[in-house]
Amino acid sequence: MAKPSFPTATTKEILERGDLLAPRFDAAGLIPAIATHAETGEVLMLAYMNAEALERTLATGEAHYFSRSRNELWHKGATSGQIQLVEEVRIDCDQDAILLKVTPEGDGGACHTGFRTCFYRVVENGKLKERLP
Amino acid sequence: MAKPSFPTATTKEILERGDLLAPRFDAAGLIPAIATHAETGEVLMLAYMNAEALERTLATGEAHYFSRSRNELWHKGATSGQIQLVEEVRIDCDQDAILLKVTPEGDGGACHTGFRTCFYRVVENGKLKERLP
Repeated sequence: MAKPSFPTATTKEILERGDLLAPRFDAAGLIPAIATHAETGEVLMLAYMNAEALERTLATGEAHYFSRSRNELWHKGATSGQIQLVEEVRIDCDQDAILLKVTPEGDGGACHTGFRTCFYRVVENGKLKERLP
Repeated sequence: MAKPSFPTATTKEILERGDLLAPRFDAAGLIPAIATHAETGEVLMLAYMNAEALERTLATGEAHYFSRSRNELWHKGATSGQIQLVEEVRIDCDQDAILLKVTPEGDGGACHTGFRTCFYRVVENGKLKERLP
């Protein structure tokens, strides 16, 4: 498969108000992606995509990320069953962040710890407390 | 003021299930922070914090970020009026992402474009369409 690539926006107007999908990957070739639950809106996780992961996500309708620890394409749920069916893909004003609305399959969660969201801890008085939203 | 610093979690158990706030900043000293609207849950923006921005956010109750383009501490809203009152601070399982629940002041928005959220565009058939959630 040819290495996927995306165009570059040549003006601020095109970047911010145009219809051109021109994601700005960082020096490592990555862009952060927030996954929220399509039904509840809860923020489930933040991960990273490279161009291939974004292309795969758009082509298949299932969330793909790039695992920085394993240094490889990561089809979320392929081993855990927590496949994320992508209901909507958004991008922010300067196209350096992605927002997914997903329906998690499997146990309905997104976190390897067993919590449904990775954000299961609140900072209170400088300490962390486990508390689901 | 002394340069703020945070401890390092020495085990996976402490990192993921402990009460120690031990944020993992990247090589550039930054951690991504998602801001959601405290009332609606809508994802408003994604920005970055360095240790000082996180310390200032926790100390003042107003969101501070680090502007990568200006290379400086960024008190959100100081010029735009879009101050973000922080209702809750969360951190994810491996402590490399922050989630804020905020109440935006000023015009109630978070984006410099005038939209209330930075994620005002959906990807559809490879093109972007402006559409608020």
